Amino acid sequence: MENIGYYNGAFAPIEELMIPACDRGVYFGDGVYEALRVERHRFFALREHLSRFRASLAFLRIPFEMTDEALTAILQEAADRVESDSQQLYFQVTRGSAIRTHAFPEGAEPNLLVFSRGVPLADLSEHRRVIVLPDTRWEHCNVKSLNLIPSVLAAEAAKERGCCEAVFHRNGVVTECSSSNLLMLKDGVLRTAPADEKILPGVTRGHFLMLARKLGVPVEEIAFTLEEACGADELMITSTSAHGLPVGELEGRAVCGRDDALLRKLQKAYRDYFYASVEN
Amino acid sequence: MENIGYYNGAFAPIEELMIPACDRGVYFGDGVYEALRVERHRFFALREHLSRFRASLAFLRIPFEMTDEALTAILQEAADRVESDSQQLYFQVTRGSAIRTHAFPEGAEPNLLVFSRGVPLADLSEHRRVIVLPDTRWEHCNVKSLNLIPSVLAAEAAKERGCCEAVFHRNGVVTECSSSNLLMLKDGVLRTAPADEKILPGVTRGHFLMLARKLGVPVEEIAFTLEEACGADELMITSTSAHGLPVGELEGRAVCGRDDALLRKLQKAYRDYFYASVEN
Repeated sequence: MENIGYYNGAFAPIEELMIPACDRGVYFGDGVYEALRVERHRFFALREHLSRFRASLAFLRIPFEMTDEALTAILQEAADRVESDSQQLYFQVTRGSAIRTHAFPEGAEPNLLVFSRGVPLADLSEHRRVIVLPDTRWEHCNVKSLNLIPSVLAAEAAKERGCCEAVFHRNGVVTECSSSNLLMLKDGVLRTAPADEKILPGVTRGHFLMLARKLGVPVEEIAFTLEEACGADELMITSTSAHGLPVGELEGRAVCGRDDALLRKLQKAYRDYFYASVEN
Repeated sequence: MENIGYYNGAFAPIEELMIPACDRGVYFGDGVYEALRVERHRFFALREHLSRFRASLAFLRIPFEMTDEALTAILQEAADRVESDSQQLYFQVTRGSAIRTHAFPEGAEPNLLVFSRGVPLADLSEHRRVIVLPDTRWEHCNVKSLNLIPSVLAAEAAKERGCCEAVFHRNGVVTECSSSNLLMLKDGVLRTAPADEKILPGVTRGHFLMLARKLGVPVEEIAFTLEEACGADELMITSTSAHGLPVGELEGRAVCGRDDALLRKLQKAYRDYFYASVEN
């Protein structure tokens, strides 16, 4: 099949899958999610995604009791039902279904929703354009929750200006992008904002930092300003679907392009790691 | 019927109503809502709710083209299908249904969801207990969006401590509560935070300010601190379902009770206004 949806035991094409209107995801966004890559029907970095997923559930206090093994079996079945060799698999868990009242409903069971579909890996060669927006999100951006209106509005604003991402900043200090992290190369050092409550601890971000260290590239987890970003040798957007995309233009201003060799070395290290992981 | 749900043309009991899993409300909370009172099958303050609803839609740039008249006809049919003389009617509009990508989907039509059920008006006599929590929400709390995790967690925290609400503050300055506004009486003046981006401009809040002015009670729309709240003559929680509830305990500390006469006068003015409105 071209894509698949799953909800609490039932499979159907995404466009045909139905869920109860009283799922608390529908009216409170009361849930958390993960998105991961499936290459030739094998998961990449599943362990890291499951670990972050459990942390998000813990923050929201959602008692999702399914084991990682049982969950993985469902995710695998979803991926296997899609023909594509290169999939983006999404799953979310909400607190449950109930009549709408804010406090936690008694006796409700968490709901599991899964989508998977073919999405090719991004082309890493081309430089991308990004816009800049104030980060008006809540104070727990480390939680991968379903409350995503700021990211939706930012992604649309970027798209309307022919850009692929929006870089968020708080008072001039870069946090991350609408659905990716932002990494900077300057004088041979790889730098990005620390994994605190202001950013999502991206799985791809973590892999790039790990691989840089292995290659002997110094790593700094220290936030940088917009001004520093404009003066970077290179900027890179990292996410599960984008891997590491080079930035060439920020708010209409040409930036980067001063350390292409190191950028390409890191990109290659990541793709090698990615393919080695899904092959073993 | 005891309750009713409606989605894009179809009615069913709330617990049986189904919606597509790819409604953007489900995975982004990409929508806005309103909740209003229906008394003997007549709406209270419908015009104010519709006006705020259109403002929320405009902020999210959701092109919901249904006229107020057509929407009202659906809401009326929903209310009429429920027997109760005292209903809470909820409606939300999401950007539409589509495969999950952050930017706005092309050609998607907004989805309208409605719930109505019997919910008695709150007992205004008893003093309520509230807790205090930091306000960690986003910077557009004036928008009545479906991104409600902070309010869900705060309402649960209040409930677990035997309280009815959580008072939010930013650096010690009170904003509002998890799903209501907070008003203070001090030296005969009614004071509450200004209707800026830090609070929802509550319809009930607006009515209390209007009625106070009519009664010759001075009104100040100036934020107050937690310390000032503790020294208030009276504190009152206002919302569509609560009307105006007096606070008697804040974080386990006895507060208020120093201007009961004025508090009761305002409460009575509100209930009189409410019943006069739904009768005419």
